[in-house]
Amino acid sequence: MPLSPYRRLTPFADAAKQRGVHVHHLNIGQPDIETPPTMVAAVQQADIRVLEYSPTAGYLSYRRKLAAYYQRVGIPVSVDDILVTTGGSEAIFFALMCCLNPGDELIIPEPFYGAYTAFAVATDVRIVPVTSYLADGFALPPIEEFERRITPRTKALLLCTPNNPTGYVYSRQELELLKDLCVRHNLYLLSDEAYREFCYDREYVSALHLQGADEHLVVLDTISKRYSSCGARIGAFVTKNKALQLAAFKFAQMRISPPGLAQVLAEAASELPESYFDHTKAEYLARRDLMVRRLQAIPGVQCPVPGGAFYVMAHLPVDDCDRFCQWLLESFAYENETVMLSPASGFYATKGLGRQQIRMAYVLNCADLDRALTCLEQALLVYPGREIAVPEPALDHSH
Amino acid sequence: MPLSPYRRLTPFADAAKQRGVHVHHLNIGQPDIETPPTMVAAVQQADIRVLEYSPTAGYLSYRRKLAAYYQRVGIPVSVDDILVTTGGSEAIFFALMCCLNPGDELIIPEPFYGAYTAFAVATDVRIVPVTSYLADGFALPPIEEFERRITPRTKALLLCTPNNPTGYVYSRQELELLKDLCVRHNLYLLSDEAYREFCYDREYVSALHLQGADEHLVVLDTISKRYSSCGARIGAFVTKNKALQLAAFKFAQMRISPPGLAQVLAEAASELPESYFDHTKAEYLARRDLMVRRLQAIPGVQCPVPGGAFYVMAHLPVDDCDRFCQWLLESFAYENETVMLSPASGFYATKGLGRQQIRMAYVLNCADLDRALTCLEQALLVYPGREIAVPEPALDHSH
Repeated sequence: MPLSPYRRLTPFADAAKQRGVHVHHLNIGQPDIETPPTMVAAVQQADIRVLEYSPTAGYLSYRRKLAAYYQRVGIPVSVDDILVTTGGSEAIFFALMCCLNPGDELIIPEPFYGAYTAFAVATDVRIVPVTSYLADGFALPPIEEFERRITPRTKALLLCTPNNPTGYVYSRQELELLKDLCVRHNLYLLSDEAYREFCYDREYVSALHLQGADEHLVVLDTISKRYSSCGARIGAFVTKNKALQLAAFKFAQMRISPPGLAQVLAEAASELPESYFDHTKAEYLARRDLMVRRLQAIPGVQCPVPGGAFYVMAHLPVDDCDRFCQWLLESFAYENETVMLSPASGFYATKGLGRQQIRMAYVLNCADLDRALTCLEQALLVYPGREIAVPEPALDHSH
Repeated sequence: MPLSPYRRLTPFADAAKQRGVHVHHLNIGQPDIETPPTMVAAVQQADIRVLEYSPTAGYLSYRRKLAAYYQRVGIPVSVDDILVTTGGSEAIFFALMCCLNPGDELIIPEPFYGAYTAFAVATDVRIVPVTSYLADGFALPPIEEFERRITPRTKALLLCTPNNPTGYVYSRQELELLKDLCVRHNLYLLSDEAYREFCYDREYVSALHLQGADEHLVVLDTISKRYSSCGARIGAFVTKNKALQLAAFKFAQMRISPPGLAQVLAEAASELPESYFDHTKAEYLARRDLMVRRLQAIPGVQCPVPGGAFYVMAHLPVDDCDRFCQWLLESFAYENETVMLSPASGFYATKGLGRQQIRMAYVLNCADLDRALTCLEQALLVYPGREIAVPEPALDHSH
């Protein structure tokens, strides 16, 4: 099991703080948005005499409200299609345990969320990446690239939309292509939809909006980003495939129940006004626009406009972003501030890719983001390993 | 992955309730003891603006208080030896992932906690049981029985003390024998100590009280039973072995953090008065004594006096306890009440063992327990499959 790539930089960030340098954290998807007070209040006003195990699949009352939420966003599932999990993490874990045997292959467009690698190691699943390219805005690679990687050991395809780390929002047409591929080759289509609510330019399409493939589709969900409740650890494993739902339930039995207090918090989300996401989305949109504008104004920096989530992937004119990110923390400050970024190498399964890319999370307010971007801009003027390189080529589909 | 054995009986219990029959639940370890109000209040009064991910290893403030708790009970660990987990379940999972490779063998005295089987399936570990016997009070089988089962694939030994399901509390001498065995054969000794506080007749000894084997010892812990907080899902993985602690940390990174609200609740346990367990222990002791007295007065029933936890294992004069437990729910009532028990077959890895045994949890108050025991007594008078059989022989060490 590898150590998380985030971890490698943490001691340098800690040292910078000890030197009195303010570190802007753009490296993690921990939003600064307030958790809805009505959700916190629901826990704080609950009448709890004995904090008992909840049912293995989650409280029925919560699952009912979650089904109603899915129906509101056009996902036609019922209570029986929902298993409440301990964060989206556990939903990913259950999906890999239920859909793949040890040694089986899982196709994922790269770059992808780093924890998928850890879950694949834990479940002895082999990740087969299909590279998407910054120059294409990280759009879905041609479907032939997926098809040619299918072997008798391929059991599933894992997608994240809106995407972490790229912010790309897959179109209905792209999802239809993937669905058809999965149906044709009898694969599961696992869809991580943690950022569902955060689409800025394009219609959001869930895997469960697709028709005629219920036996193939699994949605992995979480309230972490949706309601700024990362610490609650409440997610969901959603599928209309009864055999899969039963298999996941058996894995869920071994940990008895998902967290109880947090389910009370999650259930209270159903009382939020319809307009709840308007404010949050507007805030993220303003941040995205600021970040993209600032980045695109820096010579040698290239970044597509991400359509969703709260991440930007950017090409930087540096020798190596792992080295650059460490240097930012170790050797640089501007007006006694610096910035912590995620080197993109941790998001690629193919060795050597992403060397000149970083991921930034716009989880700070616009004023702080602006200061953080100024740090980055200034850093790029003085970084010793600066190089004006041609970005990685797009679309070399010959390999 | 097998379905939990509990699950099989649930529809029959539900049907009984629908017929208006009151079902006394002695089948699960869900205590009716009140969760300490100061712990609930700590969550309810917490100032939470953003419910953020906690650190992967748990909040430092909680780990500090947990280290102080362990030191108070004579377990000399520091903050760095503690990883906060999502329930004791996750501690078990991490231990198996970190200590054993796929195909490796884990020795466990049987009967044992049913979920171990599920975790072994999930981690592709082979459980090798060593049978303990009701006639011996489920004491540790002779150490030679363990030694002869060690193969080159054996990597660890898993113990639960006080034991679920038997209630047996391992003596210092028994633990020393196991420790010596583990040191001699370079095995890990995994000690599930969920019921630490509930020892009635004998000194409690933790695996981490043992000397000179720090590299071999791992304690799997939880607040579920200790503070009647099963729904919180807070446990701990405790070891002074630095390499193991790092390995567990890497697995912990993939799920980012343990539940946040529940850590606030757990941390408040440090403010409970020293006398907190006195009342709970006295209550459980009274229940145990009532249950054992009632059971031993029923002709053909045999049960040892369990020294800890809140379970009793009993031999019943029936053909098959799986059938009997179903019959209790399906075809029996006394004064419109019946009782739900756990057939012991689910606690044995060796096929055929435990057929005439049940586990009962004394998680109800004495008045309800008394009524439940009357149901059992009456049921045994009329059950069609009643037989006065000789209990399973003790100590056939030839196999």
